[in-house]
Amino acid sequence: MAVDLVIVGSIGLDDVKTPFGEVKNVLGGSIVFFSKPGIVGVIGSDFPKEHLEFLEKRGIDIEGIIMKKNEKTFRWHGFYEYDMNEAKTIRTELNAFSTFQPTLPEHYKDARYVFLGNIGPGLQKKALGQIRNKEFVMVDTMNFWIDHDRDGVIDIMRNADAVLMNDAEARQIFFLPSLVMCAKKILSLGPKYAIIKKGEHGALLFTQENDTIKHFNAPAFPLESVIDPTGAGDSFAGGMLGYLAKTKDVSEANIRKAVIYGSVIASFNAEGFSINNMRMISRDDIERRFNEFKEIRNF
Amino acid sequence: MAVDLVIVGSIGLDDVKTPFGEVKNVLGGSIVFFSKPGIVGVIGSDFPKEHLEFLEKRGIDIEGIIMKKNEKTFRWHGFYEYDMNEAKTIRTELNAFSTFQPTLPEHYKDARYVFLGNIGPGLQKKALGQIRNKEFVMVDTMNFWIDHDRDGVIDIMRNADAVLMNDAEARQIFFLPSLVMCAKKILSLGPKYAIIKKGEHGALLFTQENDTIKHFNAPAFPLESVIDPTGAGDSFAGGMLGYLAKTKDVSEANIRKAVIYGSVIASFNAEGFSINNMRMISRDDIERRFNEFKEIRNF
Repeated sequence: MAVDLVIVGSIGLDDVKTPFGEVKNVLGGSIVFFSKPGIVGVIGSDFPKEHLEFLEKRGIDIEGIIMKKNEKTFRWHGFYEYDMNEAKTIRTELNAFSTFQPTLPEHYKDARYVFLGNIGPGLQKKALGQIRNKEFVMVDTMNFWIDHDRDGVIDIMRNADAVLMNDAEARQIFFLPSLVMCAKKILSLGPKYAIIKKGEHGALLFTQENDTIKHFNAPAFPLESVIDPTGAGDSFAGGMLGYLAKTKDVSEANIRKAVIYGSVIASFNAEGFSINNMRMISRDDIERRFNEFKEIRNF
Repeated sequence: MAVDLVIVGSIGLDDVKTPFGEVKNVLGGSIVFFSKPGIVGVIGSDFPKEHLEFLEKRGIDIEGIIMKKNEKTFRWHGFYEYDMNEAKTIRTELNAFSTFQPTLPEHYKDARYVFLGNIGPGLQKKALGQIRNKEFVMVDTMNFWIDHDRDGVIDIMRNADAVLMNDAEARQIFFLPSLVMCAKKILSLGPKYAIIKKGEHGALLFTQENDTIKHFNAPAFPLESVIDPTGAGDSFAGGMLGYLAKTKDVSEANIRKAVIYGSVIASFNAEGFSINNMRMISRDDIERRFNEFKEIRNF
């Protein structure tokens, strides 16, 4: 069965320590709730079978995941101190990911919605080139690629409908202090939307109408206990694009809603290690928090 | 004529440098737009007469400002780098402020609204004790007093209806990483409202209903050019309390609006050095931006 959303990214196993505990060998990356997504990525033979089963049970198509025998899965080992906005890396092992070339199964190629996770811009472009009738493409990146292949990052942005970055990355790539100015730069490259993530401070959505820049301010849900922020950015992207793929409406009004759904999913993600909390929440929980997001900003 | 709002704080002259320019000898502190406030503070004989004239022209009662001959005004000399959230201090001179004892003129003592700026908690208490029929008292503080007189800060909080702090100060005074937990601590001391400022990321208003904590998320207006954030926190407080004093309504719904008016005033403040921008804006500008705050969070 054809998928409606393709997610390209790195699938990994994480060892994470925060002031509230420690976990090893947990699933990294984004879990999508709303639509029928297909994942493109690579794993090694050490990747636990139960993680794949979990993804399948969640309705995610995993045919685009290549398993390389005799290789190990991508691994990230990191920790957080009390400032949960800053992840500290102890070790990154590329392993099977180092020679990864994305190849999409046939039934992925007519997906209308595409999320290119923060892998190298060359790989993002190669994956995107295999999709035939794109409706909405969102691109993420990270500081490593801005340092090593800034031209590639700019180039893939030109092919996107929406660019997703965090505030530090946006300032880094354009050498500008103001996020409004950074958003203008992104929009001048072609994308209709620039989304700037600010961790516990929420996200800003920018778009342009004639010569006027418009913005939408999405709060983060202030959590009493942030346990592990790893994957919050991916959950945000997954929640956002999953909602768009389900509703098939890319008007600005619906994209604002999608940004809130992204924030809802990211907030649940941060309340537990890895995706532990995500295993337990229901659609009702999601709708309830979506409505709370309305309430906390009403004046 | 009796004043309806009393503002107690330090009045200073600032030398400020940011990546966008430099000014010397400018007026520091908050300018209030809405009500008839009386200011309590101290200046030296070097304080420029034009600053006093400006305050009077703005409808501010300055009888509570004591002028000490042969002394100099409180001075702050600081700068900002590209991260405009962090002020760096080069030098602070207490001067006339070092022996300051607040004494309120008679016609200040029936004010219903009080803002205690971030002077020492002992002075805050002395000023507050002179006011007879308080309706709503908001208290600010700063890291210096948390370091040197934490007990005093906790004590003055017990006498407040609302506590205003920035996020770093809240975390520092209660040794807690989560702002939700910090707000619970503040509310457990007696105040009905805890307001946590987050600079360019806006502010959070917390209150409690039975055992449930409620929050309101106020965005900051994302500015294309933040020129000088000095005084943004004071402008926020002035805008907020000025609005409450004018509308005479301390319901939660109206306090939410007041927080937005505070954010509006703070955003204008940050768009120019010192209060330069404040000299030029009108009530229409304020109402226009208030409405923009509704628009940027609508979904």
